[in-house]
Amino acid sequence: MSTPAITVEELEALIREGVPLVGNFGIRIDHLAPGTVRMTLPYNETFVRPGGTVTGPAMFGLADVALYGAVLSLIGRVELAVTTNMTINFLRRPAPVAITADCRIIKMGKRLAYGEVLLFSEGDPEPVAHATGTYSIPPHEPVKLAVSGYQSPNGG
Amino acid sequence: MSTPAITVEELEALIREGVPLVGNFGIRIDHLAPGTVRMTLPYNETFVRPGGTVTGPAMFGLADVALYGAVLSLIGRVELAVTTNMTINFLRRPAPVAITADCRIIKMGKRLAYGEVLLFSEGDPEPVAHATGTYSIPPHEPVKLAVSGYQSPNGG
Amino acid sequence: MSTPAITVEELEALIREGVPLVGNFGIRIDHLAPGTVRMTLPYNETFVRPGGTVTGPAMFGLADVALYGAVLSLIGRVELAVTTNMTINFLRRPAPVAITADCRIIKMGKRLAYGEVLLFSEGDPEPVAHATGTYSIPPHEPVKLAVSGYQSPNGG
Amino acid sequence: MSTPAITVEELEALIREGVPLVGNFGIRIDHLAPGTVRMTLPYNETFVRPGGTVTGPAMFGLADVALYGAVLSLIGRVELAVTTNMTINFLRRPAPVAITADCRIIKMGKRLAYGEVLLFSEGDPEPVAHATGTYSIPPHEPVKLAVSGYQSPNGG
Repeated sequence: MSTPAITVEELEALIREGVPLVGNFGIRIDHLAPGTVRMTLPYNETFVRPGGTVTGPAMFGLADVALYGAVLSLIGRVELAVTTNMTINFLRRPAPVAITADCRIIKMGKRLAYGEVLLFSEGDPEPVAHATGTYSIPPHEPVKLAVSGYQSPNGG
Repeated sequence: MSTPAITVEELEALIREGVPLVGNFGIRIDHLAPGTVRMTLPYNETFVRPGGTVTGPAMFGLADVALYGAVLSLIGRVELAVTTNMTINFLRRPAPVAITADCRIIKMGKRLAYGEVLLFSEGDPEPVAHATGTYSIPPHEPVKLAVSGYQSPNGG
Repeated sequence: MSTPAITVEELEALIREGVPLVGNFGIRIDHLAPGTVRMTLPYNETFVRPGGTVTGPAMFGLADVALYGAVLSLIGRVELAVTTNMTINFLRRPAPVAITADCRIIKMGKRLAYGEVLLFSEGDPEPVAHATGTYSIPPHEPVKLAVSGYQSPNGG
Repeated sequence: MSTPAITVEELEALIREGVPLVGNFGIRIDHLAPGTVRMTLPYNETFVRPGGTVTGPAMFGLADVALYGAVLSLIGRVELAVTTNMTINFLRRPAPVAITADCRIIKMGKRLAYGEVLLFSEGDPEPVAHATGTYSIPPHEPVKLAVSGYQSPNGG
């Protein structure tokens, strides 16, 4: 599989129209490939929280949508994919600027997909948050996940 | 400690003005006591997601704010309390209605507070999501947490 | 459902023989009811870690087995129930004594069960750790979970 | 920082003597560098669980010790580093063989370190589990973490 199962335009439209709570903020897809996606959430003044940093729910929303996109990049437009759980760790107080999410799928099972997301503040090389999560997906044909992002000690 | 260290009015104002991304949706505090809070997020049409249910980030935002409120109920208006991590498990697809969060603090340390949140859809007795999370707080005087919500096998 | 779907004796034997890594330490079931279990892990000198406290993996092992027991209390001896994920928060440094786990199932779905575990050091009323986790179970008949351990804002 | 702050021999001895519950199984360090470690847990017949796979607590124990080693590779022999939380996702049923952990630190703060661990069954290129966790460490001099394992969208 060398091209994603959904296009950038389709995914941007699906986020904008399908999950407006997050999509309304104008998420932009920077890169899309099978099993990985990079997307950016422009800064919005409602993201502020005491201390002048970006509020956690904005980062969670971006991470959740990034994982959704990475799943759809493998199985196509399956809208009923739903998050079953997500863990997010906030690592640094992010400046009030745009946030970019880098997401990759680690496991693509028949019914569950699992992946991780690193979040970066614009201009800062170190991550501001890290999330992992599981999506429940309708049973589907197996998708061979190109192992990338890690080197297996057992080859691969 | 028998009265919360912040009033319902103060907390509602702090959520509305301090974290507008979530506060703008008109969160209402139903009950506040030291270490516990119940609050309700009215339904908003932007919460919809494919399948007609409420999107995960809306539930995460409510859970995060509920934990914030429960922390402040013990230490007062310390705006710089920040989430360090949160895990949320989605248990049922919630109907497009208001969501109520029940939050309690399980541990109140000198620098970290830890608690859990159950989320309920209006009219449904069973929870739609469960979250746990940690807040980092400025070093403060110890607060004796009235152990409630669980029965210790060791008395207490 | 008023009696557990597995007996104390059956569950103790299953833990001892089925998961010997943990079961070998002589876990004792203190209480078993549909959807809840209390069990105790006697102290063993191999649990020590630098600082003289109990090592995290001992607590994780107990929490995992407690969740397993609570699941089987609802569906009976289904050995192929497997953990899909678990989050554990360590709240206090536990003294080198026995640890008791209190576990309850929060959601019992057709394929997934979700619950939480509080861990207590012998003699200490406050919890030393809190875990939440999901078990994947073979598809089974719906089990009505007696809602206990929390009060729903919507009755129930 | 180009050499780890603890040697392979020191770390192996510390694991063997300091955390015997896990260390007794003969963990071997395959690779150690500042902020990353690879270590292998040989198979032991007590790891079995119903279904013939490796029990979750064995994998959790390895992940916890790997994170401990990666932290010490940056700050040296600080035995009082303690886990504050860990989330583990089980991705595949592991065969009854040795398990290798690949761990990297994602954030090294003044008081908290955060990292992730991928676990592999011997001979299988795809991961069987993924864990993330936080260690609390005594306040220490800042350690510059060589950003590796991910590419920041912001350079660096």
